[in-house]
Amino acid sequence: MRSGGVERMRRNIKLILEYDGAAFFGFQRQPKHPTIQEHLEKALSQLFNRKMKISAAAGRTDSGVHAKHQVVNFYVGATRRVAPPLEQIQKGLNGILPKQIAVKSVQEVSANFHARYGAKSKTYEYLVWNHPVRSPLLLHRAHHVSFRLDLKKMRLTARFLMGRRDFRSFCAADPARKNGKAADTMRTIRKFEIKKEGDLLRFRVQADGFLYHMVRNLVGTLLEVGRGKIAPEEVQKILLAKDRRKAGPTAPSTGLTLVNVSY
Amino acid sequence: MRSGGVERMRRNIKLILEYDGAAFFGFQRQPKHPTIQEHLEKALSQLFNRKMKISAAAGRTDSGVHAKHQVVNFYVGATRRVAPPLEQIQKGLNGILPKQIAVKSVQEVSANFHARYGAKSKTYEYLVWNHPVRSPLLLHRAHHVSFRLDLKKMRLTARFLMGRRDFRSFCAADPARKNGKAADTMRTIRKFEIKKEGDLLRFRVQADGFLYHMVRNLVGTLLEVGRGKIAPEEVQKILLAKDRRKAGPTAPSTGLTLVNVSY
Repeated sequence: MRSGGVERMRRNIKLILEYDGAAFFGFQRQPKHPTIQEHLEKALSQLFNRKMKISAAAGRTDSGVHAKHQVVNFYVGATRRVAPPLEQIQKGLNGILPKQIAVKSVQEVSANFHARYGAKSKTYEYLVWNHPVRSPLLLHRAHHVSFRLDLKKMRLTARFLMGRRDFRSFCAADPARKNGKAADTMRTIRKFEIKKEGDLLRFRVQADGFLYHMVRNLVGTLLEVGRGKIAPEEVQKILLAKDRRKAGPTAPSTGLTLVNVSY
Repeated sequence: MRSGGVERMRRNIKLILEYDGAAFFGFQRQPKHPTIQEHLEKALSQLFNRKMKISAAAGRTDSGVHAKHQVVNFYVGATRRVAPPLEQIQKGLNGILPKQIAVKSVQEVSANFHARYGAKSKTYEYLVWNHPVRSPLLLHRAHHVSFRLDLKKMRLTARFLMGRRDFRSFCAADPARKNGKAADTMRTIRKFEIKKEGDLLRFRVQADGFLYHMVRNLVGTLLEVGRGKIAPEEVQKILLAKDRRKAGPTAPSTGLTLVNVSY
């Protein structure tokens, strides 16, 4: 059977990944350090026996940041000879990838699906171990805070931060200008909860998008509120200042996990 | 102030430890590999500025086995010059120990307290990630089982195993004979539960004591029941056989955590 016409068609494949960020230097490819993207593209190239690149990832997680649900997509030729069935792609990748990365699902999506630009909302979780003594079993999973935290004040502040706002004060570097215009730093936080499970605090924040280091800067600021260094109502001023220096410090990457992306 | 008489008195100190077993070759000291005991005795020796040994540990956890609540005790001279106050012992040890080990509490106990022989019951937890795809975030914390498990059958079997019984069939090596008599392999399992949290199974077993590899052999056998290789009622025969070869395989150490010891 001839398949010359089909051969030029391409399939767009969506992967859901889980990984332990402690083992890698973040998601995005880097010249000298092992990253998740590098491992994934190597595994894809080995499986398809040709040089493969991913097209996009929903969140470009930093070094140390984990993912329970990261989404990426890539294009591949449509014929069976070029691309094996989806189940075989999943099994094949999981067989090649290091144990700290797993492909949780493989799905064929429409040609215009883009893992990053198509994302309607993302959810991150940040764990804080709030106890005078560190927890070795949470070493690479939670940020250790030994001072007492006022949960009520932190929850109040989280509520203040919800809604559509300019989060420039919570953005790491000065966002790049595009065509001479300042970058858009408006984002909508839809949910911002803090659950307490014994001495473990689980911050969960869902937004239509996040600026660079935004979750870690939000959590770092809430921790300053929790220890009494910033009053909850001051957060309004911090937002209005549009100045990174007004907010709290960046919480370490260890506690952060990308837990969901919806399209 | 003279303190010659006091100097000869000794204080018995009880520590509660948490550690990540993935980083060490088990609890007990070994010639060439880093163990928890070695790190602890080194830290104690540095803190007290003299060669220190621990007296006993509640459970001599194997390589890869974690502890949320391990108990050890050691003796130290009673004078202030020799032994700093308890809070200082805790802070001092946590400052010296690797981050994968933490001293959760320090308490002075009566002279005859023995961390191992005094234990009235111990509780272990065993985690199984039951899903076709591995979970990188549970890599060193849970055993990955990809085949389907029948939870009902496993729970039934766990109930059969409760009570006072001869667990010889679940003991790793042939237990050492003492004075020509066979070792006592009778133990009482007080609780044996399996909780399901999504795709994670949490086995929790409490007994007055455990034989070598007993928890891992019990879980290994339950997993055989769960996949249909052993019928729940066969467990009675396995117990009566008093033969290690009749029970299921030893589940890997990764999933195991010592979670409580009571005196």
